[in-house]
Amino acid sequence: MNKTATGSTMRGIWLEDRRLQVCDDLDRPEVLQGEALVRVRLAGICQTDLEMAKGYYPFTGIPGHEFVGEIELAPDQPSRDGERVVGEINAVCGQCALCLRGLTHHCLDRTVLGIVGRNGAFAEYLVLPLKNLHRVPDSVSDESAVFTEPLAAALQILEQVQVRPSDQILLIGAGKLGQLIARVLLHAGCSLKVMARHSSQIDLVAKLGAELIGEEECPKQQFDIVVEASGTAQGVSLARLAVRPAGTIILKSTYKGEAVLDLASFVVDEIRLVGSRCGPFSPALRLLEKAVIDPTDLISEVHQLNDGIQALEEASRAGVLKVLLRMQ
Amino acid sequence: MNKTATGSTMRGIWLEDRRLQVCDDLDRPEVLQGEALVRVRLAGICQTDLEMAKGYYPFTGIPGHEFVGEIELAPDQPSRDGERVVGEINAVCGQCALCLRGLTHHCLDRTVLGIVGRNGAFAEYLVLPLKNLHRVPDSVSDESAVFTEPLAAALQILEQVQVRPSDQILLIGAGKLGQLIARVLLHAGCSLKVMARHSSQIDLVAKLGAELIGEEECPKQQFDIVVEASGTAQGVSLARLAVRPAGTIILKSTYKGEAVLDLASFVVDEIRLVGSRCGPFSPALRLLEKAVIDPTDLISEVHQLNDGIQALEEASRAGVLKVLLRMQ
Repeated sequence: MNKTATGSTMRGIWLEDRRLQVCDDLDRPEVLQGEALVRVRLAGICQTDLEMAKGYYPFTGIPGHEFVGEIELAPDQPSRDGERVVGEINAVCGQCALCLRGLTHHCLDRTVLGIVGRNGAFAEYLVLPLKNLHRVPDSVSDESAVFTEPLAAALQILEQVQVRPSDQILLIGAGKLGQLIARVLLHAGCSLKVMARHSSQIDLVAKLGAELIGEEECPKQQFDIVVEASGTAQGVSLARLAVRPAGTIILKSTYKGEAVLDLASFVVDEIRLVGSRCGPFSPALRLLEKAVIDPTDLISEVHQLNDGIQALEEASRAGVLKVLLRMQ
Repeated sequence: MNKTATGSTMRGIWLEDRRLQVCDDLDRPEVLQGEALVRVRLAGICQTDLEMAKGYYPFTGIPGHEFVGEIELAPDQPSRDGERVVGEINAVCGQCALCLRGLTHHCLDRTVLGIVGRNGAFAEYLVLPLKNLHRVPDSVSDESAVFTEPLAAALQILEQVQVRPSDQILLIGAGKLGQLIARVLLHAGCSLKVMARHSSQIDLVAKLGAELIGEEECPKQQFDIVVEASGTAQGVSLARLAVRPAGTIILKSTYKGEAVLDLASFVVDEIRLVGSRCGPFSPALRLLEKAVIDPTDLISEVHQLNDGIQALEEASRAGVLKVLLRMQ
């Protein structure tokens, strides 16, 4: 395997044994064949990063997987040097049984940016395969482009399940990801009700024109589709109560521990439960370019990389939406 | 509501407080508008009947929902008198939100033959709406026709999920229902592996030409679709291990109590879980008429109604497949 040493060191956030620290002497990543070195401009903090910092997932290294940056070095394709890009987070082999079936983001040998076996975006530089990097149209600001990854994750719902414009949908949870899901579903023409907890979330949902609904007033066995984006066991229970027979529950969040389900009722009511993770980047970039979706009102705070630890603490406060890290 | 009293009494099996008894003095059922009185010829014992007798579902009355019989009285359509029929088990309102969406077997006001609010087939007579009753083609024997309901339930898998001929499928459990599921999937052209426990089940699966597989040798994350038909928590765990990322688990059995699932792994691997219950009768009858599927080798024993209690005991013995009750 050819390696290109990029020399010198860089600043970044290092996670080890549930401890986060800003380091000035991290090695700049090596560029392997087919990869590019990306200078990160802006990165977003996701719920998964916060869960990793609490130790729910084992990861040692630089976290972070939502970013926009510039290609600094692309030995295999020098014409892309300087290109402003966002990046798909799964670096895949292209050769395993799942890759060959087109299920590349489930590649058996994958690394995942800032999550599995690959340093992430909370640093001055990261490395990803060139094929993962999508050019950002000039009209899309950094502040908008940094939402490409979570917007793609929201769009994944429509990749997995047929969402009909006439569907009645309940969204449980209106945090960072929930807000993007709400926009995607409203644009599909669906009748959408949203359960939100915090005033900042409620205000944004109201601004979108979606209907807010409380737990107590939520009708039972009513909704064609329930999207669970709260990441709580309580949210899963609510979803089960709210979905109609032969309806679909979509799990669109990070869950801690195990959940208890009454499987007999899933059989009798023929409920469909669908786990949902990463989604397609090109459609997400199209929606941002055409300004069909403007995610920038989700930005709660922007911090410099130096203040990264404080930024992660802020991001984990109840009701805070997207916190960004500016690298330079 | 017009009622037609059919007078006199009949013999049947009565379930109350987990106690089964053969009674000679049960009231013959009244025929309401749109309904027909059916003289039962042959009834099949299903796992659900055995679970009900153990008290897992609250039901007082005559159990039994698999049958073939003859229309004895159809006041609204006398031309059907004498017709040999099988019957869909959900008696529905036709007017609720779910009926109006075509989800009739999830009708909010349904009764279910021998399961919910309606006496069943382990008796000389039963009553069902005329529209539920399907004529049995002359070439289909009673012994074959009595399998229409469980065969329809097996076909429901294909109604809910796209099963591709190139799919690799694992079937966990090769009991009464599992054997029919195996036939349906083999006829779809799928590569099918089956986990079976008892020698009688194993012999039948081998005769079909499906490949038997042991728990220990079962490959992980391999199967496009896993059909769980064992009704055990262990079966559900095995299904989760065996299904590939972005694959589908179909729950096709009666479950007792609650199950514990690692929902985070459902999200990361984008697993789809589908509960599956009753299915379409017309295709089931077509397959029986064309002898594409011959279920009669599943018959373990045939008992007279008088010996009904013993028949139910036999049916609950490990490895015993279909036990039938002959009414007359």
